[in-house]
Amino acid sequence: MTDPTRDLLPEGLEDRLPREAAAVTRISRAAIDVMDSHGYDRVRPPLIEFEKSMAGRMDGVQPRRMFRFVDPSSLRTLALRSDITVQVGRIAATSLARAPRPLRLCYGGQVVTIKGDGLDPTRERLQLGAELIGSDAVEAVSEIVLLAIEALTAAGARGISIDFTLPNLVDALAAGPFPLAGDAIEAVRRELDAKDAGSLREIGGEAYLPLLYATGPFDRAIAQLAAIDAGGALASRIDGLKAVAARVGDKARITLDPTERHGFEYQSWFGFTLYAEGVRGVLGRGGTYRIHGLDEPATGFSLYTDELVKADQGAEHARDVLFLPLGHDGEAAARLRAIGWRTIAALSKADEAKVLGCTHVLDGKEPQPL
Amino acid sequence: MTDPTRDLLPEGLEDRLPREAAAVTRISRAAIDVMDSHGYDRVRPPLIEFEKSMAGRMDGVQPRRMFRFVDPSSLRTLALRSDITVQVGRIAATSLARAPRPLRLCYGGQVVTIKGDGLDPTRERLQLGAELIGSDAVEAVSEIVLLAIEALTAAGARGISIDFTLPNLVDALAAGPFPLAGDAIEAVRRELDAKDAGSLREIGGEAYLPLLYATGPFDRAIAQLAAIDAGGALASRIDGLKAVAARVGDKARITLDPTERHGFEYQSWFGFTLYAEGVRGVLGRGGTYRIHGLDEPATGFSLYTDELVKADQGAEHARDVLFLPLGHDGEAAARLRAIGWRTIAALSKADEAKVLGCTHVLDGKEPQPL
Repeated sequence: MTDPTRDLLPEGLEDRLPREAAAVTRISRAAIDVMDSHGYDRVRPPLIEFEKSMAGRMDGVQPRRMFRFVDPSSLRTLALRSDITVQVGRIAATSLARAPRPLRLCYGGQVVTIKGDGLDPTRERLQLGAELIGSDAVEAVSEIVLLAIEALTAAGARGISIDFTLPNLVDALAAGPFPLAGDAIEAVRRELDAKDAGSLREIGGEAYLPLLYATGPFDRAIAQLAAIDAGGALASRIDGLKAVAARVGDKARITLDPTERHGFEYQSWFGFTLYAEGVRGVLGRGGTYRIHGLDEPATGFSLYTDELVKADQGAEHARDVLFLPLGHDGEAAARLRAIGWRTIAALSKADEAKVLGCTHVLDGKEPQPL
Repeated sequence: MTDPTRDLLPEGLEDRLPREAAAVTRISRAAIDVMDSHGYDRVRPPLIEFEKSMAGRMDGVQPRRMFRFVDPSSLRTLALRSDITVQVGRIAATSLARAPRPLRLCYGGQVVTIKGDGLDPTRERLQLGAELIGSDAVEAVSEIVLLAIEALTAAGARGISIDFTLPNLVDALAAGPFPLAGDAIEAVRRELDAKDAGSLREIGGEAYLPLLYATGPFDRAIAQLAAIDAGGALASRIDGLKAVAARVGDKARITLDPTERHGFEYQSWFGFTLYAEGVRGVLGRGGTYRIHGLDEPATGFSLYTDELVKADQGAEHARDVLFLPLGHDGEAAARLRAIGWRTIAALSKADEAKVLGCTHVLDGKEPQPL
């Protein structure tokens, strides 16, 4: 007898059984194929790397979320990847440092964290994404935002909405029109994050108050932002946002939250978050950044499609399945598989077509409905 | 400046850059699609599990090859999977214990070991495979062997050869016509493995000598095996091998090595190893076994296609790529992508079609060769 507790999986880790696994395959192939069709070459970095190399590219944001262990061969600490973006950045900065720019790369694979995210205990997720290396200009941002929308749509998402943000806006304003002392910058960011007007005033961040009100549906929020007289840095960002929004058009509903910073620790002037109707939580994030160790501008996004997998299972993906009786015509069966039929062959007289989920039976050379 | 040594990957782990990564994607999709077309449902177990649960299903053969680490959440030891077969066995014995039999499952994913295999330092590999749970009879074995050949062929293998073996033959003969004391069984196995006739005689294994000569091309070797007068256990195995070989026909070259045991520690009456022309080493292994904790017969195989990836890269997979100039017709580009074109859009005037690997340029609504 097997001890049943031995079969339990650790918290936040699960088996994808046939229905779910099929949805994962469908979704990841669809998203990867969209990225490929726009010229993004897939790369496949390893599941584990030297911990120092990965953590060094994370700028201290996430390294404590990785599983770490000693490599008996090198006696160095390895880590199980928690994010593929940093691996793609490493590839762009090393093996593909001399590849022509802009360099378009995409990826899809499992990532694992020690702890789940907030209330969600999930510790293993599928991460899909694309990186456009060599530009963080409006054209690059537009391509990446549209690509993320198209990939999500191919993966089955409907009613996509995007929240734009300006990750390094406070730094830019503090260095220019609304000067702040060093440690006041972090305090202002915190109060903007908390949307606390009173505290913002108290710490001398009065000039930043209008940012609190430049949030919500894009057209209204961008007008509020434009009303702030802060000179070139803000004006160029507003022009950029408007250009990207124009390119998105009616492909997604756009909102603006210029001071949102959660999840945008790496990003420079532009960041975005993706949502879809009927799907809980964030489906993806992206933005502009600089490649670590190369100081090259880049724009990219990551999708986490686990919630889409749940939604996809609800959809109907029933397939016809053809039962092949004992002694069936093997060539006929092979021809039918070649045109898309799925077959299940009888191994003994005990095998029953309906019990095995078949909808048709091979009668001579032709499928007959059961 | 980045320390360049930080960018080195640990021994036996590597990035798959675009050409190789594309080959991996092509090969794994092709193999999975073949398994799917024969009614094998994909499952996706997690990358890590409780070490005890995985090791307990390996019968002590491989657990020391797994990376292990403590889970801060459960304080139990986890392991990074080194083999997906044991995970599929767990699923068959637990979540899918009540699913109708025969149960057809397939899988594809990364596995990692602490050490490479012999001289090959590779520590991360793609494992693809199928398990037919509920039967180890000749019909099941034939289906699995033919499926492995078809999957490898779809993945690009040519000139496939299969080596059949009879993993528990010595046990069966020792329990029947050629009795051996307990510890003599292991000694006889060892000398058969070493193909050492002298030592085999010395340890009293004379009756097993003819097995040494029943190796090589199938027809000749099976005749040698049939000449051994060992009663029912051997006769039924010979009939089984002949029936499977007849089903394989000219789809693969077949050899027999009845006492080969390396890699068949789990297998019962039948095992096989797959090779292909121009590809170094073993491409896959399979055979009959019993599901751990369920004592149910099963037949399956695993493919390790890394050597095929290297061969595939030599093949020509050049694709047409369409350059989209600034201000191009976006709808025309989308229509062309929908019929299979790959596009690369200009982000600025500096982008040059040929530098970016394009073969065509969009002129109005139509592609023109460059």
